[in-house]
Amino acid sequence: MFECFSMESRTVEAYIYTHTHPWSRIAKWSDSVHQIRNFSATKLNKGAREHPPTSRARGPREFGARVGVTPTHLGLLKGIMDSGNQLQSQGYAADITSIKEAKLRISPYIHETPVLTSKSLNFIARKQLYFKCECFQKGGAFKIRGASNAIFSLSNDQAAKGVVTHSRSIFNIFCYSGNHAAAVSLAAKLRGIPAYIVIPENAPRCKIENVKRYGGQVIWSEPTFQSRENVAKKVQQETGAIMVHPFNDKYIISGQGTISLELLEQIPEIDTIVVPISGGGLISGVTLAAKAINPSIRILAAEPRGADDAAQSKAAGQIIRLPETKTIADGLCAFLGDLTWPVVRDLVDDIITVDDEAIIGAMRMCYEILKVAVEPSGAIGLAAVLSDQFQQSAAWKDSNNIGIILSGGNIDLGVLWKSFGK
Amino acid sequence: MFECFSMESRTVEAYIYTHTHPWSRIAKWSDSVHQIRNFSATKLNKGAREHPPTSRARGPREFGARVGVTPTHLGLLKGIMDSGNQLQSQGYAADITSIKEAKLRISPYIHETPVLTSKSLNFIARKQLYFKCECFQKGGAFKIRGASNAIFSLSNDQAAKGVVTHSRSIFNIFCYSGNHAAAVSLAAKLRGIPAYIVIPENAPRCKIENVKRYGGQVIWSEPTFQSRENVAKKVQQETGAIMVHPFNDKYIISGQGTISLELLEQIPEIDTIVVPISGGGLISGVTLAAKAINPSIRILAAEPRGADDAAQSKAAGQIIRLPETKTIADGLCAFLGDLTWPVVRDLVDDIITVDDEAIIGAMRMCYEILKVAVEPSGAIGLAAVLSDQFQQSAAWKDSNNIGIILSGGNIDLGVLWKSFGK
Repeated sequence: MFECFSMESRTVEAYIYTHTHPWSRIAKWSDSVHQIRNFSATKLNKGAREHPPTSRARGPREFGARVGVTPTHLGLLKGIMDSGNQLQSQGYAADITSIKEAKLRISPYIHETPVLTSKSLNFIARKQLYFKCECFQKGGAFKIRGASNAIFSLSNDQAAKGVVTHSRSIFNIFCYSGNHAAAVSLAAKLRGIPAYIVIPENAPRCKIENVKRYGGQVIWSEPTFQSRENVAKKVQQETGAIMVHPFNDKYIISGQGTISLELLEQIPEIDTIVVPISGGGLISGVTLAAKAINPSIRILAAEPRGADDAAQSKAAGQIIRLPETKTIADGLCAFLGDLTWPVVRDLVDDIITVDDEAIIGAMRMCYEILKVAVEPSGAIGLAAVLSDQFQQSAAWKDSNNIGIILSGGNIDLGVLWKSFGK
Repeated sequence: MFECFSMESRTVEAYIYTHTHPWSRIAKWSDSVHQIRNFSATKLNKGAREHPPTSRARGPREFGARVGVTPTHLGLLKGIMDSGNQLQSQGYAADITSIKEAKLRISPYIHETPVLTSKSLNFIARKQLYFKCECFQKGGAFKIRGASNAIFSLSNDQAAKGVVTHSRSIFNIFCYSGNHAAAVSLAAKLRGIPAYIVIPENAPRCKIENVKRYGGQVIWSEPTFQSRENVAKKVQQETGAIMVHPFNDKYIISGQGTISLELLEQIPEIDTIVVPISGGGLISGVTLAAKAINPSIRILAAEPRGADDAAQSKAAGQIIRLPETKTIADGLCAFLGDLTWPVVRDLVDDIITVDDEAIIGAMRMCYEILKVAVEPSGAIGLAAVLSDQFQQSAAWKDSNNIGIILSGGNIDLGVLWKSFGK
């Protein structure tokens, strides 16, 4: 259970009380009127009375009372903590605590990416759009956030043996995105440890070069699921390297969630965030952080129609895996994992599916109007905002300030052109 | 003559004394150690004694003395004012005063563009590079700075009749860039006045659409110099519209100079700025502002080999106009004007010429590594930094923190691909 706080100047600190970690600070925010929700002093006082007196007497609530807390701040805290508490109590893989820890851990190694706007695109969408440009992130995609959080969370002993990962899809070679592999290579290089990247022999050249450029050691496998698994296991046995999963991992999810911390600090008035969905690591982190800060924020997933496992899963109420996927958005072909599915099931408000033509159109707009080089998987959020499915939904009229995560920009210009030429 | 100053908190104000404008404030800077040059208190005191006692007694120097001025601030001011004074006394079309006025005038209408960095590009260049992304500017290029300064400088009576401009090169249709025409259309729209844009009948479709999108009224001419001039004059006679020249104009030059104010505030340690050169409006403004702030800053022009009139002019000591130009950098085919030539002649340190292959290579790096969509004219600065001419020059070893102006990003993706396919 939560329930304590302090206030200093315009910074607000919230604390959580648990039997294992009494009065741990779970968060620190700047004061923002946009975040104030459902203030209830009575409820707060009632909650506070449940704490053991000794803990309460020594806890930061005393400090909070001493420096003075206004109803405004109480309301702010109450909303945030109700939400954070609720999210935590449901046992998701990450929470606002782990995401804020991730931010502290990875901030020396990543960029705070800029938010761009375009009046022309606002005009086309008939909404105020805010593009969070993760294509400018180190390694060209958001993936370094999770990878660096996972790798810098390792103990020195664990880290010394290195890390291993592999391309997640080898049945459909068009779907080898490689952003995670490159990010693991880069994060391992930053920590000064080896990264073993298992790659099928028929992977695209540019993706292999990305891994090598960041210092990853390429370990070849045959282009079959079994070969990939065997090679990765062999590497683990021989080296003792730790496997870094691309999405189904609490450190990966927490790292990706740092996007929301940045975005809502940059543009507090955002009421809707549109996020590409694949294995669900990005959207899980973004959702858990954003809803902890602002419980009423709307999270929309953007998914290619040719790999719509998440939309099908949400409709069916269970994880659906597809026999095959076919889309130009090569980064969005993974299926949900057991750590990401609960977040998608419970907290993601809707999933918008778009076809490849819409993705290509959105990518072209990113190039020609926003002047940003985005890969198909990265541009899908704009396609979703411009889709009939969204514009005819109930969410449309309440979504006025829309954050769109341009998740990555790693693309071979030859592939780009072929897609435009279609 | 200059010589007075005040200091308040960490902001420094410098004043100029003239008989026409006693004690006008010429500048206001944030305190930055990077800008301190050649401090000489003796020299400063000597200068101060030359002022008439009455003016000095009432002047802001009194205020400066009252709040306390450290030797550091004196040095900073001395350097800035020596330089600004020198530049003004030589009678260039713009100066730090007009450029700071421009910033005040246009800031509601333009973006402060971000500066991006890339470790991969630093590694390739073996220097720390700072990319000033004017491709993210309103209208997709720096041109809105000058155009809005010119248009918002008009009196209400002048403005009511509208503005007129035309494409500057109609002999070589490849060289119709259109960024200035689009910027004039946009700035006129912002002021709510008509913009008449004279365009040859064979201009590229995408450029015409840009003008129309921003509300410019397209006036067709035949594709000859004479027709263009005649049509523009006719429009002026019929409407009373004011001609807005693309570069040979003090308001245009002052507007473009605001880039330096932003860039040197964003990255004060910059020692070299690389600027595309065409008619010279951009480089004149950038140079006059940058050298007023930091007299030792190095300004390098980047010019396509197929339109190297500026390099030839600087070598010959007079303006050279070429019989024809041929380059993919369609925005860089204009020749210097009588207002821009003196700045290029006296203050631009060197001109680096690069061929189209190098421009295309740089453009590709901007897309694939920096993830920014840049037109050929916009990417030429990176090509210049990577050129043998620069890397074998004396300036190379002293250029460690290099600002590169990515001047624009307006390009048809079809044209882009054709250039990559070469």
